[in-house]
Amino acid sequence: MSGTVRLSIRDAVATVTLCNPGKLNAMSRHMWQDLRSAFEQVHADAQVRCVVVCGEDGNFCAGGDISEYAGFRFDETSLCNFHENDVWPALQAMLDCDVPLLAHIEGNCMGAGMEIASCCDIRLAATSARFGAPIARLGFPMAPREAALVARETGLTVVRQMLLEAMVFSATEMKAAGFISRLLADEQLASEVQTSARRIASLAPQAARLNKQTIRALLEVAGTVSGAGSDDDQAYAYADSAEHREGILAFLEKRKPLF
Amino acid sequence: MSGTVRLSIRDAVATVTLCNPGKLNAMSRHMWQDLRSAFEQVHADAQVRCVVVCGEDGNFCAGGDISEYAGFRFDETSLCNFHENDVWPALQAMLDCDVPLLAHIEGNCMGAGMEIASCCDIRLAATSARFGAPIARLGFPMAPREAALVARETGLTVVRQMLLEAMVFSATEMKAAGFISRLLADEQLASEVQTSARRIASLAPQAARLNKQTIRALLEVAGTVSGAGSDDDQAYAYADSAEHREGILAFLEKRKPLF
Amino acid sequence: MSGTVRLSIRDAVATVTLCNPGKLNAMSRHMWQDLRSAFEQVHADAQVRCVVVCGEDGNFCAGGDISEYAGFRFDETSLCNFHENDVWPALQAMLDCDVPLLAHIEGNCMGAGMEIASCCDIRLAATSARFGAPIARLGFPMAPREAALVARETGLTVVRQMLLEAMVFSATEMKAAGFISRLLADEQLASEVQTSARRIASLAPQAARLNKQTIRALLEVAGTVSGAGSDDDQAYAYADSAEHREGILAFLEKRKPLF
Repeated sequence: MSGTVRLSIRDAVATVTLCNPGKLNAMSRHMWQDLRSAFEQVHADAQVRCVVVCGEDGNFCAGGDISEYAGFRFDETSLCNFHENDVWPALQAMLDCDVPLLAHIEGNCMGAGMEIASCCDIRLAATSARFGAPIARLGFPMAPREAALVARETGLTVVRQMLLEAMVFSATEMKAAGFISRLLADEQLASEVQTSARRIASLAPQAARLNKQTIRALLEVAGTVSGAGSDDDQAYAYADSAEHREGILAFLEKRKPLF
Repeated sequence: MSGTVRLSIRDAVATVTLCNPGKLNAMSRHMWQDLRSAFEQVHADAQVRCVVVCGEDGNFCAGGDISEYAGFRFDETSLCNFHENDVWPALQAMLDCDVPLLAHIEGNCMGAGMEIASCCDIRLAATSARFGAPIARLGFPMAPREAALVARETGLTVVRQMLLEAMVFSATEMKAAGFISRLLADEQLASEVQTSARRIASLAPQAARLNKQTIRALLEVAGTVSGAGSDDDQAYAYADSAEHREGILAFLEKRKPLF
Repeated sequence: MSGTVRLSIRDAVATVTLCNPGKLNAMSRHMWQDLRSAFEQVHADAQVRCVVVCGEDGNFCAGGDISEYAGFRFDETSLCNFHENDVWPALQAMLDCDVPLLAHIEGNCMGAGMEIASCCDIRLAATSARFGAPIARLGFPMAPREAALVARETGLTVVRQMLLEAMVFSATEMKAAGFISRLLADEQLASEVQTSARRIASLAPQAARLNKQTIRALLEVAGTVSGAGSDDDQAYAYADSAEHREGILAFLEKRKPLF
């Protein structure tokens, strides 16, 4: 089991750090479980007023840990289990958190990284950060609720280019698209994240929780995430397809896939 | 009772002016009632083809009239009564108006000003205008339907920074976020508003009404405003909390609040 | 019957070309029927992996073919028949297509052109292209589902200016509004469209279909298009009004309408 998610809490600010050394913090199954636990712990701690979400060593998160994929993705039941019992509960724990979440984004923010960033309320990014979800190269689609979440935060124009063209976007492009709250020079990002976290922590905490509940409620009324395919029993039927196997095996064998 | 909302009608263009001298046109309870009356009158006048909404003396509206707050905000029933029976009916009268609404925005557009501007169809702003809803500094959240309305018009990225970080935005930033229809040099705003109002008044009036009804219907289908917390009986339970009192009393006493 | 829609398929890329010579490819009733047939054919062809939608001779589509309007628009039944049985089924066939749709937009993209472009997943536009739906000058509103579709893709701020002010937008403005995926110098558009179509065709085709189904499902949950007025039996009651006749007759007589 590679990778961990670290949680530290200091002066009313929690920091959740994605760590998978040598893999640009790609999310292993273990890390999804860690992520869920970290947010359940934060949610239960009445002292926490802001959560910073970041990655270790200059990257936010480069996606899923593809080295694990051949072990569970080609069987429909285990693929469904991964998305619905590992990935989604972690994202849901983030969405359910009543404390403002602040994403600190540098380096790669791809696939799973886009999903984790999409759960955050405020996203500060370094100018050199890169964003995408080029899984069409790996031969598989984004799971329905995960796509709905990313689409809600990026807008339709960006998510379609990410999923249908495997496009990668610069931080400047993602700022223009409205996904990034504020864009910062690489060397200023860390200090601005701290300044912002301290500002959030100094504001009225009950008002923040009520505002988060209101925004969550209106997104639930709009229904895009909760309604998108969560009960779609065909969502993972592609598990054993030739295309899916070809995409992932070509990546692992470091060759171009043939679709 | 301080403040008034003036209505004048000339050549098929109605002008609704927010006036609270010395308070940057902050909305008193009386002004919310006036605002509702003005729009009910406009809605019933078949000659009106365009409504310009503006503020007196260089500001749109700086928020609510905080000098009145200690008198009604700390009791749940009277707080609910304010939001549901004074504020919302005025905003609903604006949303229900079948005539195109054109916001003329200069100076401060804060809190209640953001809500009033969010009911307008087309928003023209001066380059020097400023936008925000920094009520987290005053210790209270935005009421659910009001937050849903503002979120719909500003997008999630901006509304979260306004509510969770108490951020204030420039007109250029609000243009980039899509909230402002057109940005104008300060000295050109007034004449461009008049030009635009005359252009709207010269176009087919029945078509305008039908288009407004269509856009309203599709927003009601999406459900974000009508569904957001209007029947949430916990929405005003924070009225008597220490945090709420501290925020407003600190403001009135001109000191920094301690949350 | 003037105008045709051509379909050609080569190397897994289908090209749908709007053609109405001398009318900037304005859509005749015949062309709407052609458009529907073209997309039904594409949808049934498992070899197609990308569809390029373009117009002939330097324009995308300038709107509806107004020369036909006096023949059917002034009777409620025939107007409803036009929108619901000619226009919408063609747009629905585009929306139902599981293959990625790539719009190649140059010259005029107005009215019907905006609706057709709004059905595409990725929109590449030439810098000199122009966008709008100035039908308020012609005395009629946009049909409810068509307006909901355009609003979803342009955002509320742009669609309101198009419909209520008859504003026309540059490609740069539409890129900033998020409607255009990528903006290109006029002379580079055609080659970039081909590059993009080849890239889409080289990616995993089953993943593309599943991603398109997911995005369509979440838009249906949000309900904006399917719910907007499709069963509104008042939507076409304006057919025989003086305003509607005046707008179209003034256009045909090359004079300014008096509303």
